Amino acid sequence: MEKVFSKKRLLKELNECPSYEGIDPTELAEKLAELAQIGKTEEEGVSRFPYTDEERQAKQLFSEWMKKIGLTVREDAIGNLLGRLEGEEPALPVVLTGSHLDSVPNGGVFDGPLGCVSSLLAIKALIQSNIPLKRSIELVVFVDEEGARFNNSLFGSRTMMGEVKKEDLKRFKDKNGNILYEAMKENGFDPEHISSAFRNPDEIHAFLELHIEQGKRLETEEKNIGVVNGIAGPVWMSFAFYGETDHAGNTPMEYRKDTVAAAGEFILAVEKIPRKYSETAVSTVGKMHVFPNGTNVIAGKTELMVDARDIDENARDQILEALKRSAQEIAQKRGISVEMKEEVKIPPVIVPDSIQKIIRSAAEKSGLTTITIPSGAGHDAMIMGKYVPAGMVFVPSHNGKSHSPEEWTSLSDCVSGVQVMKEALKQLAND
Amino acid sequence: MEKVFSKKRLLKELNECPSYEGIDPTELAEKLAELAQIGKTEEEGVSRFPYTDEERQAKQLFSEWMKKIGLTVREDAIGNLLGRLEGEEPALPVVLTGSHLDSVPNGGVFDGPLGCVSSLLAIKALIQSNIPLKRSIELVVFVDEEGARFNNSLFGSRTMMGEVKKEDLKRFKDKNGNILYEAMKENGFDPEHISSAFRNPDEIHAFLELHIEQGKRLETEEKNIGVVNGIAGPVWMSFAFYGETDHAGNTPMEYRKDTVAAAGEFILAVEKIPRKYSETAVSTVGKMHVFPNGTNVIAGKTELMVDARDIDENARDQILEALKRSAQEIAQKRGISVEMKEEVKIPPVIVPDSIQKIIRSAAEKSGLTTITIPSGAGHDAMIMGKYVPAGMVFVPSHNGKSHSPEEWTSLSDCVSGVQVMKEALKQLAND
Repeated sequence: MEKVFSKKRLLKELNECPSYEGIDPTELAEKLAELAQIGKTEEEGVSRFPYTDEERQAKQLFSEWMKKIGLTVREDAIGNLLGRLEGEEPALPVVLTGSHLDSVPNGGVFDGPLGCVSSLLAIKALIQSNIPLKRSIELVVFVDEEGARFNNSLFGSRTMMGEVKKEDLKRFKDKNGNILYEAMKENGFDPEHISSAFRNPDEIHAFLELHIEQGKRLETEEKNIGVVNGIAGPVWMSFAFYGETDHAGNTPMEYRKDTVAAAGEFILAVEKIPRKYSETAVSTVGKMHVFPNGTNVIAGKTELMVDARDIDENARDQILEALKRSAQEIAQKRGISVEMKEEVKIPPVIVPDSIQKIIRSAAEKSGLTTITIPSGAGHDAMIMGKYVPAGMVFVPSHNGKSHSPEEWTSLSDCVSGVQVMKEALKQLAND
Repeated sequence: MEKVFSKKRLLKELNECPSYEGIDPTELAEKLAELAQIGKTEEEGVSRFPYTDEERQAKQLFSEWMKKIGLTVREDAIGNLLGRLEGEEPALPVVLTGSHLDSVPNGGVFDGPLGCVSSLLAIKALIQSNIPLKRSIELVVFVDEEGARFNNSLFGSRTMMGEVKKEDLKRFKDKNGNILYEAMKENGFDPEHISSAFRNPDEIHAFLELHIEQGKRLETEEKNIGVVNGIAGPVWMSFAFYGETDHAGNTPMEYRKDTVAAAGEFILAVEKIPRKYSETAVSTVGKMHVFPNGTNVIAGKTELMVDARDIDENARDQILEALKRSAQEIAQKRGISVEMKEEVKIPPVIVPDSIQKIIRSAAEKSGLTTITIPSGAGHDAMIMGKYVPAGMVFVPSHNGKSHSPEEWTSLSDCVSGVQVMKEALKQLAND
């Protein structure tokens, strides 16, 4: 049980927590722990899928918390939950901030909820401090960020920015055949009037999201805060090598058209190529299938998927071209063939320098250390960033674990994150 | 239908067949075709498993053929079928020749049956020629060579040479839970007296088997006959790389402990290493599993199996050591670990020069071209060769296909094989 979430484990280091005006570490731990009870799994993780009792319950609880600190709460037609703190100049574009409360199956406690709770506690601290805020701040809990039920990730933010059509809602089904449109209706939402959930980008001054890093850089480099400089949209590209299925004993090395060997060569190219084009790029083979997959059979077919990402779209596309050339050269040299297909291609989003600067100075004036870091994972901020200036604050993930009950961020790191959100939101609201 | 077996397809090239004394190409085609009917599959392949009606029927038919040419036929306690042509000096060690009639699921028509029919027609031609033979010749149809039903390959030859114990028969089960021992009894055999099937190696002068190459060398190099110089016993060795499962987007290249990348590097080593030690060695990765096998997940575990073979046991063992070193070096360099395990290790068998010479000159005096070639696949001759001088005659496999309905050897190549068997058996019987 040492390696999973518990309030006790979180509060163990209460005494080492930094102290910031208006931020109560115990309240943070309690709120995270209360959310962790909803959809809790046997392994002490959480399963909270969109348009289910668990998600409704989590949003209901969060809604009460928002009301309690004085926000005006509403839910849009698809279930994005919003809490508004009116600014002194209500007609100005608002500062939007928040994250999500849904999870992957047996996911962690921090991915999503920590962002929501951080925005909540940051706003609470701002209210308590009585500092005047020019712009209104809206706290948003996006519905269905993970896409775990309908394979339709970033649904809430995509809808808010007008990327989803009513017809789309009838296409998506969960594994039991339930249609998204019907699930929404059964949960009291109004898919017919989806367009009422759309927001005009002109109404939004900036979007700010706190999230766990889901990587190891902050922990390894012993830094408190990651200032995200861009969100690397992934490309998923499938490569299928076709050679010849032969007897592994009776086919001399020089007679082979071995697709596993070709794949081996290509995997090394996938590992080496990104660094030639960009310092922030990554590319990975994490999925691979060999056919017929017999010990004494030279494989006539090997399929693999490449995940390539960078915050620099130009570099990422150069990497993609280099990967394609490499696969073709390997196939040609070996007298085999290769089929390549782009399965997913999402453009990266750059975080404007002005937003990075606000986050960096918020951290530095709080005595926190920072690194500038790309986000390799997609987030609602990636969608928002296509339309409005959007920034992200990363806090350390212990061992880089995420999407697992082992997901962990120390209470100190959580509290530091709230402090940075508080200072950055204050700055943005008075921009 | 063009790519599978039919008598019509075989007889298409009857006019191009070489003509040899006492060998009737049409008879060969008809006998192969008759056997192909027994256990015939929808795809025009064959499924004939040990201790089934199909195998009994095939052996029954073959038994009649042996009786018809004048052989004395008997079946041993486990179902090896034997037909004896008495020599002029019956007390001398016999020349044993033959192959098997069982098959893999949906296997080809030639693998096994062509060896049995070739030995039969060669002996028939020797009988007709009235040439005096000093030694007796025994034609053997080994039971259960493929191991397709009881996962117990080379069962007939291993039993004949005393490698199988009565207790073993109760361990092996087919996929329906039928025990080998019971299956044997139900088919009229006598597992209790398995030792009566054992042969003393001193009673056997030599063993000779014709088989399809199951590779592409003869066809590619346009040669008629492969003179097998050794049978490469396989080593199967499993390698499991253990690294760290991480997010493919949020983990910079230099932070990874990626087991797919390690496997890629190792696959290339498996491809390169054999040639450093031996011209005849081969090694192959044909089976591989990636965990968790997700597109956006760096794989924390990758398992693969290496099949390594050579007719030179010393070279093979050096290759094995080099493979282990390579896996360890790769793991060490990448900060991951590797577990290695020898799953199967069968010693190779060398064909004595004297036997190779007999086969080579039998081919050459018949106007046929030869190459000297190792057998990468296991055969009954591999077992026999541990105890008595054993040789193999390979005939070309079209496209190297085997264990498939596409298995094919032209009628000319089949007939040339019979001719070489006839001449080699004559030589061995008068040794």
